[in-house]
Amino acid sequence: VVESWSFLDTVESNFRPLVVIELAKGTKEETIEWFTKRIVDKKANGGAQLLIKPLVMENGIENIYLVGASHLRLLLGAETVGLVKECSDNSMRTFTYSSRKTFKDFADDNHNFLTMAECQYIIKHELENLRAKNEKMIPGYPQAKLYPGKSIVRRLLTSGILVQIFPLHDREELKKLRHSWYGRVKVGYQPLDDIRCYFGETIALYFGFLEYFTFALIPMAVIGIPYYVFAWEDYDKYVMFATFNLLWSTVILEVWKRICAILTYRWGTLLMKRQFEEPRPGFHGVLGINPVTGREEPVYSSLKRQLRIYLVSLPFVCLCLYFSLYVMMIYFDLEQWALDYHKENETSFSSLMLYVPSIIYAVVIEIMNRIYRYAAEFLTSWENHRLESSYQNHLILKVLVFNFLNCFASLFYIAFVLFDMKLLRQSLATLLITSQILNQFAESLLPYWLQKRYNRRMKKRMCSQKTDTDLSIAEQVNMEKEMGTYLGTFDDYLELFLQFGYVSLFSCVYPLAAVFAVLNNITEIYSDALKMCRVYKRPFAEPTANIGVWQLAFETMSVISVVTNCILIGMSPQVDALFPDSKMDLVLTVALVEHLLLAIKFIMAFVIPDKPRDIQMKLAKLEFESLEALKQQVRAFQMQL
Amino acid sequence: VVESWSFLDTVESNFRPLVVIELAKGTKEETIEWFTKRIVDKKANGGAQLLIKPLVMENGIENIYLVGASHLRLLLGAETVGLVKECSDNSMRTFTYSSRKTFKDFADDNHNFLTMAECQYIIKHELENLRAKNEKMIPGYPQAKLYPGKSIVRRLLTSGILVQIFPLHDREELKKLRHSWYGRVKVGYQPLDDIRCYFGETIALYFGFLEYFTFALIPMAVIGIPYYVFAWEDYDKYVMFATFNLLWSTVILEVWKRICAILTYRWGTLLMKRQFEEPRPGFHGVLGINPVTGREEPVYSSLKRQLRIYLVSLPFVCLCLYFSLYVMMIYFDLEQWALDYHKENETSFSSLMLYVPSIIYAVVIEIMNRIYRYAAEFLTSWENHRLESSYQNHLILKVLVFNFLNCFASLFYIAFVLFDMKLLRQSLATLLITSQILNQFAESLLPYWLQKRYNRRMKKRMCSQKTDTDLSIAEQVNMEKEMGTYLGTFDDYLELFLQFGYVSLFSCVYPLAAVFAVLNNITEIYSDALKMCRVYKRPFAEPTANIGVWQLAFETMSVISVVTNCILIGMSPQVDALFPDSKMDLVLTVALVEHLLLAIKFIMAFVIPDKPRDIQMKLAKLEFESLEALKQQVRAFQMQL
Repeated sequence: VVESWSFLDTVESNFRPLVVIELAKGTKEETIEWFTKRIVDKKANGGAQLLIKPLVMENGIENIYLVGASHLRLLLGAETVGLVKECSDNSMRTFTYSSRKTFKDFADDNHNFLTMAECQYIIKHELENLRAKNEKMIPGYPQAKLYPGKSIVRRLLTSGILVQIFPLHDREELKKLRHSWYGRVKVGYQPLDDIRCYFGETIALYFGFLEYFTFALIPMAVIGIPYYVFAWEDYDKYVMFATFNLLWSTVILEVWKRICAILTYRWGTLLMKRQFEEPRPGFHGVLGINPVTGREEPVYSSLKRQLRIYLVSLPFVCLCLYFSLYVMMIYFDLEQWALDYHKENETSFSSLMLYVPSIIYAVVIEIMNRIYRYAAEFLTSWENHRLESSYQNHLILKVLVFNFLNCFASLFYIAFVLFDMKLLRQSLATLLITSQILNQFAESLLPYWLQKRYNRRMKKRMCSQKTDTDLSIAEQVNMEKEMGTYLGTFDDYLELFLQFGYVSLFSCVYPLAAVFAVLNNITEIYSDALKMCRVYKRPFAEPTANIGVWQLAFETMSVISVVTNCILIGMSPQVDALFPDSKMDLVLTVALVEHLLLAIKFIMAFVIPDKPRDIQMKLAKLEFESLEALKQQVRAFQMQL
Repeated sequence: VVESWSFLDTVESNFRPLVVIELAKGTKEETIEWFTKRIVDKKANGGAQLLIKPLVMENGIENIYLVGASHLRLLLGAETVGLVKECSDNSMRTFTYSSRKTFKDFADDNHNFLTMAECQYIIKHELENLRAKNEKMIPGYPQAKLYPGKSIVRRLLTSGILVQIFPLHDREELKKLRHSWYGRVKVGYQPLDDIRCYFGETIALYFGFLEYFTFALIPMAVIGIPYYVFAWEDYDKYVMFATFNLLWSTVILEVWKRICAILTYRWGTLLMKRQFEEPRPGFHGVLGINPVTGREEPVYSSLKRQLRIYLVSLPFVCLCLYFSLYVMMIYFDLEQWALDYHKENETSFSSLMLYVPSIIYAVVIEIMNRIYRYAAEFLTSWENHRLESSYQNHLILKVLVFNFLNCFASLFYIAFVLFDMKLLRQSLATLLITSQILNQFAESLLPYWLQKRYNRRMKKRMCSQKTDTDLSIAEQVNMEKEMGTYLGTFDDYLELFLQFGYVSLFSCVYPLAAVFAVLNNITEIYSDALKMCRVYKRPFAEPTANIGVWQLAFETMSVISVVTNCILIGMSPQVDALFPDSKMDLVLTVALVEHLLLAIKFIMAFVIPDKPRDIQMKLAKLEFESLEALKQQVRAFQMQL
């Protein structure tokens, strides 16, 4: 088997396998023939003009194909997807084939001008844009309907003929990346540019945000430690800590936008034009005319979708919220029971028992979050949104609302109904630490262990003692196709979002939260890196210019935290003692301070520019140039007259 | 005189005077010759390729010039400024000369394809973009320095050689517009499209907003009347009124964005690309290299500007605010004095005297606002902002802060320090009504009366009994050049903004405010229309897609009004009576309701889409088309390979 592959490899020396296509076992010959023909066919004939090679496996079944492309094809594809690269004069410009000579490091024989991740992104884009011409169905599968303009790959995926498409790892590069990322114990930044080259902008931006957020939490953690060590509970110190926290959280979120702009400018995605959004793969409907494109494609009535959202999804979410509150009340019963037990027989065992309800509750919360996540995905997918972005927004909204209530409802209840600050602190600590441990375990360590066990078994079966880099392509593909699929940064951001809630919502009650967050994030960087490099299939690079809806989510959380912290400070006995005569004055002062802080927050967010001055200048320069070019065109035309 | 003009007119029958240029008396011959040559010179030679004719006046002095352009020139200019017009298929597209046949109503001999206002805007744009080539100074004026790329017209204006440039009225059209706008008493909408054709988008949008705002206030006014008539002071009715007001004000501001999108889509400005912003005329500095354009032009250090802003402007504004508060305290002394006087001798005269301090204070407020306006303009201009937009933002911020405090500080003081609801109501009513009367008088009626008197004298001097439309061009120019200059919509929006404050900030105390606002706005429409048509020179049309910073200002006001109204309701004796035992519960309830209302406001603003669905679809269609066109280009290029 290995020989057959290397034979191919030597004959066509310029074929570099980039993307793997796995078809279902037993796919009909005519389908395979038609599909591969479309992939290699010329652009002019509606093909993708890519290269494709079958990979014959040990058992002789040919259901895996390797896709590559010639250097020229990739450069043209880079123009199609609108890649932005650095020019010789250090400015960032949209790549076009005709202006290729002006780009930095470009040479006709330099095959590293495009990174492997970019090449794979281009191939994915080209494959997804392979559209049906006059085919009414997929040859050999009459039930898999096609219509002119329908993406062939998406139909193959939804009808199960195509099992998966994934990009290949580059063992050599990955080893280097692993080494510089987490291979050695070191103090310093992550190699974000290398991560971006290997995994693309979305994932690099997540790691950039994780790192930035960890650094930003350090001042809060450092200030928080003496509060715990010296048990500072004076009014003025608390107020100072909380005020610092609130303003600090505003500043870090604003500064992140600037850092994000710097990163994405350097990576070129800040300047990338948005592509026209095609319907998502799962979208279905009766064939009609899209009013925007004028093309024939499935349409689905917006009214029906609204009905599904408001009559089914909304009630379901409310029911889930109610259930979550019900579980919370059971937790409080348990808590009461543990307290009674401790009072009856005061042993060290019973005092340990005090923590048990919180730990159980934390585990239950995690389980409920995960179950709800699946339900939300199912419901949102059933709502049949046409665009991926609209699907994502509805999913994120559903998940955020539930997770927020599920995680924080008990804390709100303890703080503002029971007024039990001691329990709040204890509960907050248990929830935070338990959820961190569970997450680390479930997200990275468990999959890593499973993957490692699987790899060992695979290698044993292949009876080889080769290291990773020595594997043949066939072995590599065989190993990688069984790896788990990385489902995007959603869960990782969600985890950070909830952590931010634990740290900021009740920061003045438990200043140590920031310390735990910092510690968790440091290990999170390593375990997430491990997960990306070792556990999952390589994901396709996704260009992005910002962290999207998460910016808004974090900002909303920081607004809510102003309100909760002001109330907490107002309730503290030290502040209470300052207004011995009139509770009214106390409440009014707290309300006044809260409004002032909110006003300051909004003014700060308004005043701090979202992009640093030099990035603004560079963008203005590009805009000026394109306007000038347009003017030149008009002028040239006018002069002819 | 008339003969000489009509002679010109018959010889070159296609010359239609559009714009008037008035030079200073005694401008040197060589300057005039150079300037007119540049105006008529070919584009290829760096000219504007326009037509220009001197207008010889009675006294023989030639200092007024009429500017026109050939039909072809105007069409090419329309492409340069990026005008968006309606196509034959009812879609809106950017006009290009090569695609001219696809536009609605286009015919090579149809000289009304572009409206007169558009033609004048094009000529203004061309004149302003007439740039120095190698001239080091304006010929004849060595002190008026030039450098390559400097706008000649701007230098002529700043050095006083050019007195003014203004577009001519179209007596015929104006008469029609006046008739349909305010000529007859009628119930119905303003002819916004006609106003836009004649005065341009900025002014039409102001009148659109004024009309919309008036209609939007009617429900508030209608609900407010019974409160006054039946003296409803029950708790539940008040709360209902205030809650309705708060949500209503959010809704109307969101709906306005949608209406604004509909209007500006129809007018084409929603799709117009932003032009690159050149430095404003008043900007000065030492010659340097602009890092964005790479051109030689004056540069001014940003640090120096910041120093001017923070060390001079900011303290000055604070001083003004302090002075305004000081005047307020004097007003309260007066108020006290009037009250004492009324108590001592209770006559009908003394009870009338009770209103005198408020009236005096209202007049003083108006005077202070106007004086401060000049100071703010002077300061902002001294801050030497490079761009007109940055100048405007700083000016608006300065003026808004001062006007807000100046107008509302006394009301806040009465409401939240004195807790005197009766005085609040009286003071609010007096301030609102007095300021409305003063504004109407100072803005429209006085200038109208002055203008009318001047016109009558002019006509008498010309010994003619002709009506307006029969005037010769020379007479018309002579009359129009002496008319006042309309300084933009700033003051008109400011007036509406303050009115919105009076109506919404304390709406639950004085529900009748909305009634007065509606009455004022109805007359305001007429008096503003009168002012535009009769009092001022025709202003140049300014394309715009929205009301800009005023949207934000109105939204901020509506957020502040949530806070004030909640406090007012909390302070009312009826609500007080609901919580007989605990003032705490009252305050907490009010705070809770306030936060809920604010949350609802933000969610509503987030949920209501800024553009109606059909406009969104049309924009998506255009975007899709341009992306498709780009793709076609790339594909065509790739197929050649």
